[in-house]
Amino acid sequence: MNLNKNKEIILASNSPRRKFFFELIDLPFTIKSFETKEIYPKDLKGASIARYIATKKASPFKKIIKKNQIVITADTIVWHQNKCLGKPKSKNQAKEMLKSLSGKTHEVITAVGFLTFDNFKCIDVTTKVTFKEISESLIEDYIKEQNPFDKAGGYAIQESIGILGITKIVGSYSNVVGFPVSEVVDEIEKLSSNK
Amino acid sequence: MNLNKNKEIILASNSPRRKFFFELIDLPFTIKSFETKEIYPKDLKGASIARYIATKKASPFKKIIKKNQIVITADTIVWHQNKCLGKPKSKNQAKEMLKSLSGKTHEVITAVGFLTFDNFKCIDVTTKVTFKEISESLIEDYIKEQNPFDKAGGYAIQESIGILGITKIVGSYSNVVGFPVSEVVDEIEKLSSNK
Repeated sequence: MNLNKNKEIILASNSPRRKFFFELIDLPFTIKSFETKEIYPKDLKGASIARYIATKKASPFKKIIKKNQIVITADTIVWHQNKCLGKPKSKNQAKEMLKSLSGKTHEVITAVGFLTFDNFKCIDVTTKVTFKEISESLIEDYIKEQNPFDKAGGYAIQESIGILGITKIVGSYSNVVGFPVSEVVDEIEKLSSNK
Repeated sequence: MNLNKNKEIILASNSPRRKFFFELIDLPFTIKSFETKEIYPKDLKGASIARYIATKKASPFKKIIKKNQIVITADTIVWHQNKCLGKPKSKNQAKEMLKSLSGKTHEVITAVGFLTFDNFKCIDVTTKVTFKEISESLIEDYIKEQNPFDKAGGYAIQESIGILGITKIVGSYSNVVGFPVSEVVDEIEKLSSNK
């Protein structure tokens, strides 16, 4: 990869999954993030929601960013039946979310923001994900044994319910995990080639 | 899941990735496999090759299988430009395989055989996988740092080159790793409901 190692990359996310993916890119980076409330105007739909939140996450860095830095923010949402499924707040809500995904296709949308000293750019990547009909007992076991509360839509594709229940995806796999690695590398390459 | 726990399941594969997936299915199983040469008639194409080898892997069990047993065999191939890419036998062959996959879409086909006392059934599942253009240095690093020699096509989707290089898949993800979990569960459910 044609990556300029003089840039200082800051990954503004506490997600261990994003950190894992970022480690595969052969670039040093640090993690620093500010707490951001994941709220958005009600009239936004689909990718606009993820882009709004990824942009908001970059906002506190605008005053402190230095010339050689790139700050990378990200937000992943599940868009299903014209609704945004965020992180479930209770076991019941997790159960309802997973029941609504059963037997249907939804979209996982990740927006990634790239803040530099004099610019901000946001990209978004969509993957279609199809669950087969999943039983209530599988849903209940998953909620009991895993942690659906820090995941948009209440599931992770790499955990039991994802592996057993998802029959098809169309698009980027890493995007569903929360970080479209290939597309992020392309953007970093572009930013690095601008001196 | 509606699985009959009185059946004794034997997974006839030494692949740690298949074992990991099988452990997610809530069923006891044991591993037992016989060495099978992965050779096939030259005129076979695509899924027929994987089905031929999955069938061959079941053959040594036919004389020893018991009434309550299900033996599960599997074979994964990469089908690209009308050719079957097996496991590379040298660093050079691995490099040539990965270069041929760069910037193109190939098919990953897994056939899974289900041998019971009085029947044998084989299914196959295909996933389309698209690599972006990957650099020679990424290919060389991958071959140096990972082990391409036990993988059809010379790569694993869950390793660095897969995560950094694959931009799109269409179909089952676990199938690309080597075992279409959701489809396997469906078949075991059917076999369990037959008496």
